[in-house]
Amino acid sequence: MPRLILVRHGQSQWNLENRFTGWWDVDLTEKGEEEALAAGRLLAEKGMLPDIAFTSFQTRAIRTLHFALEAMGRLWIPETKDWRLNERHYGGLTGLDKAETAAKHGDDQVKIWRRSFDIPPPVLEAGSEFDLARDLRYAGIAIPSTESLKDTIARVLPYYESSIVPHLRAGSTVLVSAHGNSLRALVKHLSGISDDDITGLEIPTGQPIVYELDDELKATERYYLADR
Amino acid sequence: MPRLILVRHGQSQWNLENRFTGWWDVDLTEKGEEEALAAGRLLAEKGMLPDIAFTSFQTRAIRTLHFALEAMGRLWIPETKDWRLNERHYGGLTGLDKAETAAKHGDDQVKIWRRSFDIPPPVLEAGSEFDLARDLRYAGIAIPSTESLKDTIARVLPYYESSIVPHLRAGSTVLVSAHGNSLRALVKHLSGISDDDITGLEIPTGQPIVYELDDELKATERYYLADR
Repeated sequence: MPRLILVRHGQSQWNLENRFTGWWDVDLTEKGEEEALAAGRLLAEKGMLPDIAFTSFQTRAIRTLHFALEAMGRLWIPETKDWRLNERHYGGLTGLDKAETAAKHGDDQVKIWRRSFDIPPPVLEAGSEFDLARDLRYAGIAIPSTESLKDTIARVLPYYESSIVPHLRAGSTVLVSAHGNSLRALVKHLSGISDDDITGLEIPTGQPIVYELDDELKATERYYLADR
Repeated sequence: MPRLILVRHGQSQWNLENRFTGWWDVDLTEKGEEEALAAGRLLAEKGMLPDIAFTSFQTRAIRTLHFALEAMGRLWIPETKDWRLNERHYGGLTGLDKAETAAKHGDDQVKIWRRSFDIPPPVLEAGSEFDLARDLRYAGIAIPSTESLKDTIARVLPYYESSIVPHLRAGSTVLVSAHGNSLRALVKHLSGISDDDITGLEIPTGQPIVYELDDELKATERYYLADR
């Protein structure tokens, strides 16, 4: 039966520094690398071996995938990278310290930006330090200037349907190494979580979440692999 | 104009131990990892940025690719892995110490196995320690029991034509991270080297070789990037 395994990238430098990251390409910390290796070892130990892998255009998710595959001796499986699995774009909050932002705009405003389903943060100004317009990886892509979780879901799910679902229909075990919000999109879809509830659902870093699916790709089970 | 960059994987544990490796999946040493990072830094410094990458099913070539891409901030480019870019299969010599093999069979015999164009080493016996029949990565693939360089070329070139050439025709810069003999196949083809001469051509580890190509994909120039 088809199986989907979700892994959120390990700790990044800006997770550690408590800064809004979004599409900015921040690398893993050593702790993040360790989390990724541990995820791979756990998958190998439980015999949960992916046939194919998907990840984003962002270094922290790609390297998490590579460390995990290395730990399970499966670097040779096909892997596809796509910007539609990127983290939610945090707009003008990108690069800001979360505590400083709360001090400046108030906790309530920051909570709205972080936890509202469909209200995006302010846009990232063109030409700002964190503008990605000249990043070659996004050539030809309409880079968002900000995203709500709803916006993120609106690009993740069509990609899931077009690129991941065919492999699940073929009965494969598929590994997705991605980000808190791109994975929320998949969890919302597969577990039927409401708009209100999904914003509060925390996806821990480096903890494989397994979906067992039926022929219709409905979830028959969802669990943290570490609990099995 | 199209450009093809070839990189032979960095030092592996069995390069260090002077053992025949072939299809056995031996990892890089720390020195090999450093060579791969250095190759990536050199490519970045010279502005030789690949649009797409190809590698084998073997960990040492895949990790060389990943280290090189990491060093140039380009882990996000598409990568394709294929067994047809694997090292030459060394048959029954796999795992043997090169000096011991020479002591046992004589230098002349070993030189024939290593340097003949079309004489393969003895076959790898089914069920031997190094039999790959149960390695899942090769499921559905007719694993050779031994290969001459000629045999290796006979699988590398059709793959080059079917999978790499279309990207070159589109004008891309293509990076191939592979092995001494699978790269010899490409060098023989692109530089028009004779059967006799190709067996003596040494491809150094971790040294990017650049082919500048014309519209017909004929080589207009071949050089070691380190020399520019």
